[in-house]
Amino acid sequence: MKKSIPCDMAYRLINHGPVILVSTLYRGKRNVCTIAWVTPVDSDLVALVVSEENYTFRSIRETGEFVLNIPDRSLVKKVVICGSVSGEACDKFSMAGLTSVRARRVAAPLVKECIAHLECVLIKGEERLAREYNLFIARVVAASAEKGLFTTRWNVRLPRAKTLHHLGGNVFAVPSGRIVK
Amino acid sequence: MKKSIPCDMAYRLINHGPVILVSTLYRGKRNVCTIAWVTPVDSDLVALVVSEENYTFRSIRETGEFVLNIPDRSLVKKVVICGSVSGEACDKFSMAGLTSVRARRVAAPLVKECIAHLECVLIKGEERLAREYNLFIARVVAASAEKGLFTTRWNVRLPRAKTLHHLGGNVFAVPSGRIVK
Repeated sequence: MKKSIPCDMAYRLINHGPVILVSTLYRGKRNVCTIAWVTPVDSDLVALVVSEENYTFRSIRETGEFVLNIPDRSLVKKVVICGSVSGEACDKFSMAGLTSVRARRVAAPLVKECIAHLECVLIKGEERLAREYNLFIARVVAASAEKGLFTTRWNVRLPRAKTLHHLGGNVFAVPSGRIVK
Repeated sequence: MKKSIPCDMAYRLINHGPVILVSTLYRGKRNVCTIAWVTPVDSDLVALVVSEENYTFRSIRETGEFVLNIPDRSLVKKVVICGSVSGEACDKFSMAGLTSVRARRVAAPLVKECIAHLECVLIKGEERLAREYNLFIARVVAASAEKGLFTTRWNVRLPRAKTLHHLGGNVFAVPSGRIVK
């Protein structure tokens, strides 16, 4: 069960650096792709980098929309599949065994199995950044997270809140103990 | 003991989303500041966001240089100090008990106690991004990491390789087990 998160709290969902499944809908075709290169830019703004060779790059550029979905460690096999296969010639949702559900504010679907979602709309006028750096800047227009895992921050002690953090290749770390200064 | 890392492997140092200590040197004054909003943009390019109210923002804009230093969990108190005090009127290195040492390719100092360093030079012509989004894009011109902790990726099982991942407020996660798909 997911609960809505205020957009100006959305940065807290990705602040600790989890791997992301980016979902898109382009010309009626859903797609999902793994990325690690994303950061908050403001409380409700994100920057993400997607290789221009990826089908997802074209989907975002043409539609101006996408969803950042946060997988937990139980989805690691699906995360690797979504990061190693192109979605141009297949349905990666089906191939990876993921479920698409309707988002609230964008046409791109949510990845149901993920523990949080940030629905995003590109900031207009930044096309040059995509051309030069494969970099997109987008506003979060809706956000949600699994009830009980995220209050004002992730409770990473809970097994379902163990996000994946990309170390390289097919190797990931997961967050453990919280340190409270 | 630190070893040199090829610049095109530098993204692997920050790929998993650790908190960063950004160090600068501006008009002879060293400074250090905690940030969480950073991502690779390419193998040897980074994007980072620094509040325009921070002394570090002005230091980077005026000098075009900075170092991303990666602290491990043993430095959490210093990380919180560097994230909550302005360096304009004090020497934060002294205040936090951190040591500055000379970098290889930039005038900004390294934070000796950190386990890795990315020496960075701003990409020219992107001043508008700093004005509009507090966003800097920079090239890594030298990188190094503590021997034994990082080969082609972090070995987060080692106690000294436990980076800090910001959950919000003064609460951080640390990476534990590696998952190899």
